[in-house]
Amino acid sequence: MDVRNVADARRFSPDKGVRVPLFESERMFCDVLGLGPGQERPPVAHEESDAVYYVVEGRGDFTAGGVTRALGEKDAVRVPAGQVHAVRNGGTGNLTILVLAAPHPNYVSRRV
Amino acid sequence: MDVRNVADARRFSPDKGVRVPLFESERMFCDVLGLGPGQERPPVAHEESDAVYYVVEGRGDFTAGGVTRALGEKDAVRVPAGQVHAVRNGGTGNLTILVLAAPHPNYVSRRV
Repeated sequence: MDVRNVADARRFSPDKGVRVPLFESERMFCDVLGLGPGQERPPVAHEESDAVYYVVEGRGDFTAGGVTRALGEKDAVRVPAGQVHAVRNGGTGNLTILVLAAPHPNYVSRRV
Repeated sequence: MDVRNVADARRFSPDKGVRVPLFESERMFCDVLGLGPGQERPPVAHEESDAVYYVVEGRGDFTAGGVTRALGEKDAVRVPAGQVHAVRNGGTGNLTILVLAAPHPNYVSRRV
């Protein structure tokens, strides 16, 4: 059975956010993202993948589709395919986020 | 922005487990499952969808592919497409699980 403990798997670095892959297949990926105080994940969009972000611990300013909201523990947000989104830890504690995207963007046939 | 708080959204019933849909699209669904003490979600398999289960609170006995493990808070398990899986709350407290499956089984073309 393919089990990972998110509290054990998460990582932080003084330099930048750390993304740890938990599971992946062509159908989806599931990562845990660790952002220390002041760190951010820059804006990104997946053209053909929907994403769900779930706040495991901490607080973060989440931006999607031009709107920014402060999210806290046990908040979940869905980002539809094509929507630019970013997250920033503007607080003083660590921010741990579970990130899922489906299908896995690396396996989506690219539009040229 | 499509935000749901899992602690607010979860539901429990004395009769049986309660599944609350949070997000859904053709690409995935994300539900929160509330199981009271002694309640279970019977075995199921999604022929063409991978699933991730994440324990938000409590403890549960998770079975997948014929193996059973006790999972606790912040454990995540991936169930590959086609694998029969079930979960039972054998404890005395509530069990809250985030469930994601991709693609959404209802939109996968059925094999006849």
